[in-house]
Amino acid sequence: MTKAIWLRASLAIEEIILSSKRVAILGAGPSGLAQLRAFEAARQSGREDLPEIICYEKQADIGGMWNYTWRTGLDKNGEPVHGSMYRYLWSNGPKECLEFADYSFDEHFGRAIPSYPPRAVLKDYIMGRIDQQAIKKYIRFECPVRWVEYDDDSKKFTVTVTNHKTNTQEVEEFDYVVVATGHFSTPNMPFFKGIDKFPGRVLHAHDFRDALEFENKDVLVVGSSYSAEDIASQCFKYGAQSITISYRSQPIGHTWPEGMEERPLVTHFEGNIAHFSDGSTKGFDAVIMCTGYLFHFPFLPDELRLITENCMYPNNLYKGVLFQPNPQLIYLGMHDQYYTFNKLDVQAWYARDIILGDKVLADAKTRQADIKIWRDRHDKLDGSDEQNIDFQADYILDLLALIDYPDFPVREQAELFKQWLRDKQENIMGYREKTYPSTITNTMATELPKPWLEIKDDSLESFMSLDFVEATVD
Amino acid sequence: MTKAIWLRASLAIEEIILSSKRVAILGAGPSGLAQLRAFEAARQSGREDLPEIICYEKQADIGGMWNYTWRTGLDKNGEPVHGSMYRYLWSNGPKECLEFADYSFDEHFGRAIPSYPPRAVLKDYIMGRIDQQAIKKYIRFECPVRWVEYDDDSKKFTVTVTNHKTNTQEVEEFDYVVVATGHFSTPNMPFFKGIDKFPGRVLHAHDFRDALEFENKDVLVVGSSYSAEDIASQCFKYGAQSITISYRSQPIGHTWPEGMEERPLVTHFEGNIAHFSDGSTKGFDAVIMCTGYLFHFPFLPDELRLITENCMYPNNLYKGVLFQPNPQLIYLGMHDQYYTFNKLDVQAWYARDIILGDKVLADAKTRQADIKIWRDRHDKLDGSDEQNIDFQADYILDLLALIDYPDFPVREQAELFKQWLRDKQENIMGYREKTYPSTITNTMATELPKPWLEIKDDSLESFMSLDFVEATVD
Repeated sequence: MTKAIWLRASLAIEEIILSSKRVAILGAGPSGLAQLRAFEAARQSGREDLPEIICYEKQADIGGMWNYTWRTGLDKNGEPVHGSMYRYLWSNGPKECLEFADYSFDEHFGRAIPSYPPRAVLKDYIMGRIDQQAIKKYIRFECPVRWVEYDDDSKKFTVTVTNHKTNTQEVEEFDYVVVATGHFSTPNMPFFKGIDKFPGRVLHAHDFRDALEFENKDVLVVGSSYSAEDIASQCFKYGAQSITISYRSQPIGHTWPEGMEERPLVTHFEGNIAHFSDGSTKGFDAVIMCTGYLFHFPFLPDELRLITENCMYPNNLYKGVLFQPNPQLIYLGMHDQYYTFNKLDVQAWYARDIILGDKVLADAKTRQADIKIWRDRHDKLDGSDEQNIDFQADYILDLLALIDYPDFPVREQAELFKQWLRDKQENIMGYREKTYPSTITNTMATELPKPWLEIKDDSLESFMSLDFVEATVD
Repeated sequence: MTKAIWLRASLAIEEIILSSKRVAILGAGPSGLAQLRAFEAARQSGREDLPEIICYEKQADIGGMWNYTWRTGLDKNGEPVHGSMYRYLWSNGPKECLEFADYSFDEHFGRAIPSYPPRAVLKDYIMGRIDQQAIKKYIRFECPVRWVEYDDDSKKFTVTVTNHKTNTQEVEEFDYVVVATGHFSTPNMPFFKGIDKFPGRVLHAHDFRDALEFENKDVLVVGSSYSAEDIASQCFKYGAQSITISYRSQPIGHTWPEGMEERPLVTHFEGNIAHFSDGSTKGFDAVIMCTGYLFHFPFLPDELRLITENCMYPNNLYKGVLFQPNPQLIYLGMHDQYYTFNKLDVQAWYARDIILGDKVLADAKTRQADIKIWRDRHDKLDGSDEQNIDFQADYILDLLALIDYPDFPVREQAELFKQWLRDKQENIMGYREKTYPSTITNTMATELPKPWLEIKDDSLESFMSLDFVEATVD
């Protein structure tokens, strides 16, 4: 055999090996879709050595958390409901901070729109970039994952799912598993003495659906993060009689309108009366726990399971995605987030390059050293939003340098995030009327034609038929 | 070796084999506890060849469905909430129909009590019979089962659970698995057009907790079985403004008080307006779906999974308990039920005798023939409560004849059930004031001192401090 023939044969074999790789993506929400898009981008650029991909999705459609559902608790198949979104939810961050480098808001909507659109409008944009026909053929819907195992000898995963459409299980082997199931779906629900006898509704933010349910009610919101801030604001907007926000360590600290206030932590309940740690009391009709979420992977054995709290850089994830004890296992979107979709994209692009073999995987020691550098930096963060934002920008830039994802103005978006913080501080009920320039197209967002508090219909149709006002430049 | 010595040696070996059997019981509710009690009864009667037992329980205590929880959706560990019970729930059947032959209400309470006690009172009785110290040592709490596998070669099951107390998984092998996880925990929640935009609370009976939430509200209850009947009655009792019960095929048909009515099936919703199939419409504040439950065994592979609707004799269960394709797998409590605790007991006693080898397991063909006889009878039932009750009595008597469980007056209890049906028909808001004689002790139940509608506190303490009235004999 001449060297040339041998080389061709060898390449052919390698191609067969490469093309026979199999990848399971668990979840078709923002993370899973980013992974599918990453491979689709490679295919469109002419790559032929792509792995076989199956994406298992619990819901009946793509979108993950972005699918609003009226259901709470368990879904139509008896599986835990994934979605935590509610009616009348508007973006609580500027759309300019999540704009895709290769698909602008201008391109999608054909005209300038305000900076804080409702959920349905944002979802329309996010989904607009996806070639649904190309993507959906990889996805098996209504297929919750039951169990994943890894065999040390074959170096393969076995993934078992229930296909609810056929009421049968499916078992397949894979070389890589991408966990894209999110971590804002399993409520963290603390117990307070007496809550079990509270004579009214007690719910977690995960089950909050329609603020109109709390019209004319005295509502207690427990928590001081985004959910608390936003659900309290929604209740105010839709006519709750009073809203009391109870914080554990620090108040949110906004200047709240008449009818809203913050109090320190609830110590216990007596009937419908909440007792707070400052000795004050107040009666309530409903209690909404905005107390965060658990990382919950009931389908993973211990040796594959990420154990972390919600933080800016979970431990054991090299480059934030490759599971250190077994880098054939990939976790997407496990960071707490400021950046969202474009961060998921760079994670997914990096993971794709590792799977394709375009990047050589560093050895375990090198990976560990890199994790340590980031974790050390993480541990020195002072907890302020400003530091967190810059840290996450650094992380994204670190990954961007390794991949062929289009560059995007990460630092400029960080500055927009900081402006957003100031605007919220200035007017919590009015910050959604602010406008920002696109970091991609420089287009200035238009203004809402009336105050956010007065726009009660959150549908795409209704929002897009508003007469947006060209922003005045100061 | 003489024959006698050989026999002794052989017996000794058999004892070792027997005593090394391992049994997993999945769930420590009424069914699982019945199974634990069955083995405990054998131990107390001097049996030494008992298997090693581990009972895995998702909750933090025994009781299963009988543990009221304020939580809905997911529990503190992120697992689906098991309990479907609510505050102010009173027994909807006579206590005399579930009285244990070997532990009477007289023995437990020391005096006569009314026939329809609240949940907490009944639970106190049910749990009073259990030697908790003896039983709890077999139970691992906060351990939801993740996955069960059966190996055809070793003839053993591998059970994988998550121990939430240690946040680690546990994997053990067993010779028998008893599925005692119930089938009234996973809601069946149908979709109606427009329900996703209903501007108020929409919930399943599984998540119903406190009727006071619906005070002064117009409530739509969808369904026509026990949950619908009872939740509608609770809402009436605790001050709902109006209750409309929507049935699919047949109305419940009681004479409802002012403010309650039945209508045919909802066709769709427009805003808060429900449209019914008779063309009528009505506006509502809340919708409660009393639409039943799904059989849901996410921890079982297809070859071990019972597939059935809720019925009086599920297919594929020999004697109602042994899974026909693999009789090392035992299902308890899978029938729809009139009889409850004593039926679970006879099932558990029979299962115990099979596991202990006290009963020789019939061959597959014989078992199948027996299943067919019962299924044929089942298919001929006319759907009436009366026929169902007699059918279930026959089933219990069939099992009772095979085991050493104390005889109890099954037929007399059947007649009480039929009286109960008539009493409900006569006065749906007053039937809980009726009294019946114990079939075990002949003690006549005492009367409530005032109408059920006026007794709002359902606690054990409050109920037991009422001045019960000696029943007048007609």
